[in-house]
Amino acid sequence: MTIATKQYEALTDETAIALARSLYPFPEGAELVCREIGDGNLNYVFQIKDPKSGKGLIIKQALPYAKVVGESWPLTLKRAAIEANALQKHGEFAPGLVPVVYATDEELAITVMEDLSHLTIAREGLIQGEAYPKLSEDIGEYLARTLFHTSDFALHPFEKKRLAAEYSNPELCKITEDLIFTDPFFNNDTNDYEPELQGAVEAIWNNAPLKLEAAKLKFSFLTEAEALLHGDLHTGSIFASESETKVIDPEFAFYGPIGFDVGLFLANLMVQSITRQGEERQIVLSHIEKTWDVFSARFTQLWEQEGIEAFKETAGYKEFVLEKIFRDTLGFAGCELIRRTIGLAHVKDLDGIENAGLRIRLKKQTLQIGEALILKRAEVKSIGAVAGLLEELQP
Amino acid sequence: MTIATKQYEALTDETAIALARSLYPFPEGAELVCREIGDGNLNYVFQIKDPKSGKGLIIKQALPYAKVVGESWPLTLKRAAIEANALQKHGEFAPGLVPVVYATDEELAITVMEDLSHLTIAREGLIQGEAYPKLSEDIGEYLARTLFHTSDFALHPFEKKRLAAEYSNPELCKITEDLIFTDPFFNNDTNDYEPELQGAVEAIWNNAPLKLEAAKLKFSFLTEAEALLHGDLHTGSIFASESETKVIDPEFAFYGPIGFDVGLFLANLMVQSITRQGEERQIVLSHIEKTWDVFSARFTQLWEQEGIEAFKETAGYKEFVLEKIFRDTLGFAGCELIRRTIGLAHVKDLDGIENAGLRIRLKKQTLQIGEALILKRAEVKSIGAVAGLLEELQP
Repeated sequence: MTIATKQYEALTDETAIALARSLYPFPEGAELVCREIGDGNLNYVFQIKDPKSGKGLIIKQALPYAKVVGESWPLTLKRAAIEANALQKHGEFAPGLVPVVYATDEELAITVMEDLSHLTIAREGLIQGEAYPKLSEDIGEYLARTLFHTSDFALHPFEKKRLAAEYSNPELCKITEDLIFTDPFFNNDTNDYEPELQGAVEAIWNNAPLKLEAAKLKFSFLTEAEALLHGDLHTGSIFASESETKVIDPEFAFYGPIGFDVGLFLANLMVQSITRQGEERQIVLSHIEKTWDVFSARFTQLWEQEGIEAFKETAGYKEFVLEKIFRDTLGFAGCELIRRTIGLAHVKDLDGIENAGLRIRLKKQTLQIGEALILKRAEVKSIGAVAGLLEELQP
Repeated sequence: MTIATKQYEALTDETAIALARSLYPFPEGAELVCREIGDGNLNYVFQIKDPKSGKGLIIKQALPYAKVVGESWPLTLKRAAIEANALQKHGEFAPGLVPVVYATDEELAITVMEDLSHLTIAREGLIQGEAYPKLSEDIGEYLARTLFHTSDFALHPFEKKRLAAEYSNPELCKITEDLIFTDPFFNNDTNDYEPELQGAVEAIWNNAPLKLEAAKLKFSFLTEAEALLHGDLHTGSIFASESETKVIDPEFAFYGPIGFDVGLFLANLMVQSITRQGEERQIVLSHIEKTWDVFSARFTQLWEQEGIEAFKETAGYKEFVLEKIFRDTLGFAGCELIRRTIGLAHVKDLDGIENAGLRIRLKKQTLQIGEALILKRAEVKSIGAVAGLLEELQP
């Protein structure tokens, strides 16, 4: 449903409760409780609950600026519509793996959706040592289904091009273009790294072959409209438990290269694996391998059973596409590893390590793996080889 | 200017004259003469002239169907707006190399523009043995300027993505996807070839490595939004004389791979070269080499002087981009050579050869060069090597 529109204004606890009441059949006389639980960078996230019945919902509202740098960085509210539409579009193909959307309002820049607060953000859980046995299978499925079904391999070209224009998302893409693909490779003000990394960082800025490969990956991101991506699929965009996985926050959705979604997720698992030892590391490495294995197996099955491309039976074409996705995946993962270590937006997996010596060593390892993935993405032949690289690292 | 809109109706000589009078300051009392001079596939082209003063203009109107197959193949009128806008956008960057647009009307699906009837369609002139000394230099310039300036190397990403959405052109792209990249590689009803080519055609349908490469080229065409292409840059889309060159008819314009425009033009010169001998062939081969040389030199200069990409100075990046464009150019040229020989839309250069034995031999050579370009596009290192391939052919 669409809510009767009015002019944009930031919601408060009170207006959020009133809106929730008008949208959801809470029991009569229910005393709703509201908490703003957003991580506070770009959006408000109101959780509205009836403690008696346990019923609740989420109202997510986009803010017209990025809070991370104050009100000085304005950001389009259109991203709320992109997020709401992408949740629903991806939900068509991967039901159960994204939250159910109850209502949207483009003017208010809100999405009203399923409350998932019984789950934990996967990044937090992983840092606390959760194993999330379903995580890689679910995300492999999610990636294969959402990416295959929105690609030219599955959609009539009219529908694909209609979606590509609808999901044109220049402002959010520019954040990625700058923060992932550009700034970390140059001495740019947005970079943020510990002084002990100065040498490693300067080595990146002076590494011409690495920069050439980063430039090629940026060009892919800028030009290759392969599928409707989530666009920001790190472990902070995933709610998880022992038995459930839900992908949230696709406000960066746009038509881009398939390997970008796969690579971002794998890179964030790689960071986790770098911070862990022994059996705990093995669990994360298994997730890395299983994500790719499930993704590629399901993608292959969908290609064979539901593909509409005239060349789909042409010998070697399916393999070519999967090899391209794999190569891109490794390259994009490499860029994500570097930017999460020295760029503007860090991850708690690394920054949260209290022992300074260990933290710096692991950050250097993260940079080293990132560089290797970017430079050697055409040579690495299997996901097992990637896991092997990570397995050998000593803290 | 935009004309006061009314409901779409096909123009007649009379309504075209009335429209011309309202738009252009013809001398008072001028007795205007109107001729419909379109090639008749997709559009009306009215030439309206005052014989006394010599002043005139063109009104091009899109038809809501493709006449080539009767009224049964409906086609969006939106292509008229795309054509008018692309003429103006490309004219910003390559002034003098496209006709001046005087007015447009989206509802009537018309573009009112400069009368170029003092020039000849380059395909016709080339067939008649014209040398067109400026053709390759002008088209090389046109290609470099229009493609560089509409790419991510020159445009702010917001503007590039705005244009990419504006020029979304699904219906016209589908014609290319089907007729160039798909149908000729399969036993499809749209194909049209002489019985003597049956063996050569079946060899294409059974050539798995060739089909794999065609599939990759089609994927590039479907996904790689590199620059605002003309989209149909064959020699029938170019007016020329000894001293002038004007590119017309960009109704297939969309954001696609840069090599597609370059490849289509070169392929149509290649067909010419195959039909000629001795010095005449040398003239066409020089045009092929010069087009690429001028394109790549000007593209390089624009990159260095006006490029905005952060990685533009990164060692090897410019070369990588030009190598990709060259490889794509050869592959797309190969697809064009094949489809112009056995697909739905033929060229007079070949079909007009009266001697049946010669015609079939030259068509087989065209297919052979097309296959070689598709299969060996990564190995061919220079445009001189391409000219060398063509030079060796015996009729």
